[in-house]
Order: sequence, then C-alpha cells, then structure tokens
Amino acid sequence: MNRVPLERKVLSENDRIAGELRDRFRVHGVLCLNLISSPGSGKTTLLERTLEGFDQNDRVAVLTGDIQTDNDAARLQRYGFPVKQITTGGTCHLDARMIERALADWPLENLDLLLIENVGNLVCPASYDLGEAAKIVLLSVTEGEDKPLKYPSIFFKSALLVVTKIDLLPYVPFDLAAAEANARHVHPKIDIVKVSCTAGAGMPDWRDWLDKRRAQTPAEHVTPRG
Amino acid sequence: MNRVPLERKVLSENDRIAGELRDRFRVHGVLCLNLISSPGSGKTTLLERTLEGFDQNDRVAVLTGDIQTDNDAARLQRYGFPVKQITTGGTCHLDARMIERALADWPLENLDLLLIENVGNLVCPASYDLGEAAKIVLLSVTEGEDKPLKYPSIFFKSALLVVTKIDLLPYVPFDLAAAEANARHVHPKIDIVKVSCTAGAGMPDWRDWLDKRRAQTPAEHVTPRG
Repeated sequence: MNRVPLERKVLSENDRIAGELRDRFRVHGVLCLNLISSPGSGKTTLLERTLEGFDQNDRVAVLTGDIQTDNDAARLQRYGFPVKQITTGGTCHLDARMIERALADWPLENLDLLLIENVGNLVCPASYDLGEAAKIVLLSVTEGEDKPLKYPSIFFKSALLVVTKIDLLPYVPFDLAAAEANARHVHPKIDIVKVSCTAGAGMPDWRDWLDKRRAQTPAEHVTPRG
Repeated sequence: MNRVPLERKVLSENDRIAGELRDRFRVHGVLCLNLISSPGSGKTTLLERTLEGFDQNDRVAVLTGDIQTDNDAARLQRYGFPVKQITTGGTCHLDARMIERALADWPLENLDLLLIENVGNLVCPASYDLGEAAKIVLLSVTEGEDKPLKYPSIFFKSALLVVTKIDLLPYVPFDLAAAEANARHVHPKIDIVKVSCTAGAGMPDWRDWLDKRRAQTPAEHVTPRG
C-alpha cells in the first residue's frame, strides 16, 4: 500500500507539463480557466450560456472532459467555437498531458480564452494542475451548503465559486449565506457569483468576472526565434 | 507515468482485505451495503429517513465517509444506532482497510445490517470493494439523466439505483424515463427505486428492497472454534 511516492512522482511530472502549458498560454496571451464541480452541477450549461453570449469574432475554445461519451462536446459545438472532447476512459480527472495532446493541432496564437471543463468530480481534479490561470469551482444549490467544508481542497484552490441553479432556491433546503461563509472559511479571498443558467439571474456578474480576467491577460507579443 | 502496476497492486491488496470482510459479514449474517453517489445527491438524508423507520431493537449500524468534517455522523447519531465517521483526510474513496479499522471495536455478532456511506464521488469509490453484499448508487434528478452513460462503472456495479429528490421534478429538466433507460443500457438487471426523502414518496419501495435483501441474509450460525 506504498502509494504515496508514486503519487508524488505522477504529480511532479504533471506539474512539469502544466508549467510548460502555462508558459505557452502566457506567451500567446491565452487566459485558461479550469472548471471543476460534482457531476451535474451545471458546468456544461454554464459554458453553453457563456458561448452564446460571445461574439463570433471572439477567440474562444473549449476542452471538455468526461469518462465516457462525447455528449458535452456535441452540446457545445452548436455555438460555432472550437470544441474538443477529452474522453478519459475511466480516469477520474484531466491531467496536463491530456491538455497538451488535445492542443497539439490548435494554434494558440488564434486563441484568447481557453475554457476547460473537467471531469465531474469535486475531489481528484483539485490535485492536477492543467496550466490554467485559475480554477473555478461550481456548487449547485441542490448539493448542500456544507460542501466547502467537506471538500476543502478545491474551494481553497479556486479563484471563483459559481453558485449555480439559484432558481431552485425556493424548493431546496439550501442556506446561501452559510454556503458563502463556509467557502470563505476555507478560502477568505475567493470570489463568489450566484447564477441561474435557466433564468439568467447573475449571468452578468459571471461575465464581468470573466471580462476582468481577460483584460488582465495581455499577450506577451514575443518575437519568434529565427 | 507508469501508474498502472501500482494501481493494480493497491487494488489487489484491497480485494484481499475486502474478501476477509465479506467472509466475516457472511459468518455473522450481516448485510453490508455500500452507498455511492456524487456529493449532495442525498446519501445522508436517505440514511436519516431509513434509520428513522427502524425499530430501536433493529441491529443496524452506519459507517459514514468524508474527506473532512464529522457532520454526517453528527446528523446520523440522533437516531440511536451506532454510527462512526471515517474521515479520509483527502482520499477520494473509502477502502477496505478503513472499514476493517472502523469495525475493530464493533462486535459483528451484534449486527444484522451495516450501511456504509461512501465519500461523495461518482468515480473512484466504484473501484474499491469494501466487502459489501451490494453497491447502491444514488442519482438526484438535479444531476441530469445522462449520468449513467458518463459514469458507467458505478451503474454497472450497483445492484440498485435510487433516484433521489423526485419532488424537484417539476422544476428541473430531467427526463426520468431516459435516466432509467440509460441506467438499464449500462446494466440491464439493475433495480430502480425513485424517492423523495423530504416528501416521503417512494420510501416504501426502498424499504421493501432493503427488507428483501435482509431476508436473503441469514447468519451461518457457525460454532466458534474452541
């Protein structure tokens, strides 16, 4: 049961590749965001509403991870932006190597924003750096306000908490103030937006957060080496 | 990144301990059930309503797993049955060794039913045998009907699917027939019950399933060796 040393080796190899990806994103001025949540918290739906709001000239692309099926890529491809499915075939998280492979035929100089939808899992994806500028955790109001305390790692590592499905608040025993307090207990500086992708509430707050991060991500405009 | 051989070793060691646990459960006539779902699908609430329905003479106990906090044990202890929290401290699933340790001071001869609430995770717990007689997967109607196709392993390995939170059906875009068809596509013989723990709908079906499994679990009444 001597699992720890190999786990460390796998993570350190992952960190090396993630570091290379981060350098490439910085050089090309690509803002990369890594969306993480439980299965069914609404990652794909948030991405659908987000892509819908972009101009067709926006230089946006999506990588979407699942254990099986390419359902999510099929849903997201309708908005006219490049979308690629990563099917992990059993692995419970995306890793940096999968991102590197998926990007092999996508010229980063054509991109400003890369949205990564991780495998639905509130635990394991928190351990794998994908070279992103920020992790974003989603929590739906049907899941319970105690989740930041039970799964602290992902809330600690995320720059933003998106509370989803707030249209269901009248029908579920979810204490929104307690959920926010629990998230801030784990991570005092976490940003929080609250949205309903079906009713549209809060979507401008999410878009503002995204636009601010995009404005902070200028390309370094390096001259290619001869 | 040569992870597979060690993963196999860990799983084979887990299987060995799980086999010993299964033998002990059989000898003492303990029905052991392993409840698995995403975070927030309602495992603890289903257990609360279940314990509430038992007679105080029922020989029932609960082990409840979480990465952090003993919130769930605190919730479950109110019903007067033995409850123990297993806090994994980061590990994304329960394993057989954790169950073995938790049972060290619980005489199995005093038990008929052991309910194990796994860590909230629809992926990794599917790989770890805990010596249970059956896995039970929960899926709440807020999570989407595609989940059996996206996370097939746990639906394939579970004897029962409990669809939870059916009181929310009027407010969410969940196709119950499609969810059942997807579960049966992955696992044709899976049993399915549909419940609302808040409204009480379907709870007798769940209790019937449980009672039938209990009736099929006679103690072997072995004579202790001298």
